[in-house]
Amino acid sequence: PAMVGAPARYLVFFQYFGTRYSGVMETKSDQALVGVQNYLEKAAQNLRPSVPIKFHISSRTDSGVHALANAAHLDIQRAPGKAAFSGKQLVQGLNYHLKPEPICILSAQRVPSTFHARFCALSRTYIYRLLLGCAHYSQIPVFERDLCWAPAGGPLDISALGEAANFLLGTHDFSTFRSLSSETPFQCPVRTLLQLEIQPAPGFLSHHNRGLEFWEVKFKSRSFLYRQVRRMVGALVAVGQGKLSPQDIQELLEVKDARAFPPHAMAPPSGLFLKSVEY
Amino acid sequence: PAMVGAPARYLVFFQYFGTRYSGVMETKSDQALVGVQNYLEKAAQNLRPSVPIKFHISSRTDSGVHALANAAHLDIQRAPGKAAFSGKQLVQGLNYHLKPEPICILSAQRVPSTFHARFCALSRTYIYRLLLGCAHYSQIPVFERDLCWAPAGGPLDISALGEAANFLLGTHDFSTFRSLSSETPFQCPVRTLLQLEIQPAPGFLSHHNRGLEFWEVKFKSRSFLYRQVRRMVGALVAVGQGKLSPQDIQELLEVKDARAFPPHAMAPPSGLFLKSVEY
Repeated sequence: PAMVGAPARYLVFFQYFGTRYSGVMETKSDQALVGVQNYLEKAAQNLRPSVPIKFHISSRTDSGVHALANAAHLDIQRAPGKAAFSGKQLVQGLNYHLKPEPICILSAQRVPSTFHARFCALSRTYIYRLLLGCAHYSQIPVFERDLCWAPAGGPLDISALGEAANFLLGTHDFSTFRSLSSETPFQCPVRTLLQLEIQPAPGFLSHHNRGLEFWEVKFKSRSFLYRQVRRMVGALVAVGQGKLSPQDIQELLEVKDARAFPPHAMAPPSGLFLKSVEY
Repeated sequence: PAMVGAPARYLVFFQYFGTRYSGVMETKSDQALVGVQNYLEKAAQNLRPSVPIKFHISSRTDSGVHALANAAHLDIQRAPGKAAFSGKQLVQGLNYHLKPEPICILSAQRVPSTFHARFCALSRTYIYRLLLGCAHYSQIPVFERDLCWAPAGGPLDISALGEAANFLLGTHDFSTFRSLSSETPFQCPVRTLLQLEIQPAPGFLSHHNRGLEFWEVKFKSRSFLYRQVRRMVGALVAVGQGKLSPQDIQELLEVKDARAFPPHAMAPPSGLFLKSVEY
């Protein structure tokens, strides 16, 4: 039999508009919404590998959450005698087959076979986009629907929100700020929040929408607990609205119990963007 | 029989994401894509008027063209004894029934029965969004697809583009810059371009996309010829790419013939936004 070489391993970065997907992770394809990974692997099959291609996703994102740049690794075994794809060929080939979907490969590079997109990541950065100044859902510009959260109620007290944010920075047991899942009992709840920044930001055509203000909240950590960012944003917004005090955030941390989180305070997925995965 | 009052006339401003519509104007509803007007009138029928409601649209936009604010007037005749809707009630009622569509009523106000949204408009302002720095379609952020034009080729010479724009400003016979339509022979081709500005602009999350630059080209005139803005933008971009000289724009104006327009130079609808209609 012909000699078969080792498969080539690649690290790819990819972008997606998450509204129409069940999340990034693969799902059984008989569901109404399927995962971004299903489309990535379907596109990859069109490259005619000798072994089906599996994407190992760096960062799990929920249904409705977007990515400016998520990451994954994959191995490609080609037929004997065929040269490995270059990074550029892989980007072009995958994008060609992904075309109708709002999913796009940004880059691809060869990595050693010991590289793992999930376990080798040094940190993840998320952005949460808030739209302030809307009295009602219908005031969200149609171009921004699904891409931000416009919390009901009046203006936010940004300085109280910043004060509360300082309690979250650093290393803590974030048990109160995770949602319960089947993995929860086995997962260490201690995380180190390296960065938490709140700043005004431009929105899509927002210079034409007087009275609307966009703010971005940026979170950086080696990794996050299940729904931790959405819970932290929801609690911070509650502080900005005067429903919680900044000190309440510290107390919530100290309770270390997911059931202590204020009901219905979690921020919706529409405003959440995975900005980058750092290696 | 009960006394029937005069119908109440309203001026409404509305916003839409144009990609999924055949344009703003009503079409027969058995087509694959129908017009924004079809959805507006369907929503209005849910308000149970005694006479079917017709929207008289201020500014016709093509399939794929968006509006930050288009305008229309409509008459509402209610059953005897029922008070006329307030502007706020009309906005809320229409938006409730438009909800799943990316169409939104921004405001509504009572106007005299002599008011006409199309003929009383003093001017229209359009914005055309250009994305520079993309070598290929796949480099357009997925969040910006359908909302800009990324012309192929290298960077644009913005100063040449500005020089060419100066030839278009003011009153001219714009025959070369209109597309032929069934109305063309009857329509005076002279228009006065009151404003033509070119400036850098923020894109959606563009501060996270290094290397990409957004520019907006703004056009203001009492009215425009059929596809005039898209033809003007296409010609200006050709100047920015060095395919035409600024003086060629002046010569194209002087020829006064739609067939003299460079083939395939018209800009696509995706980058065009009706920004406002002024009264």
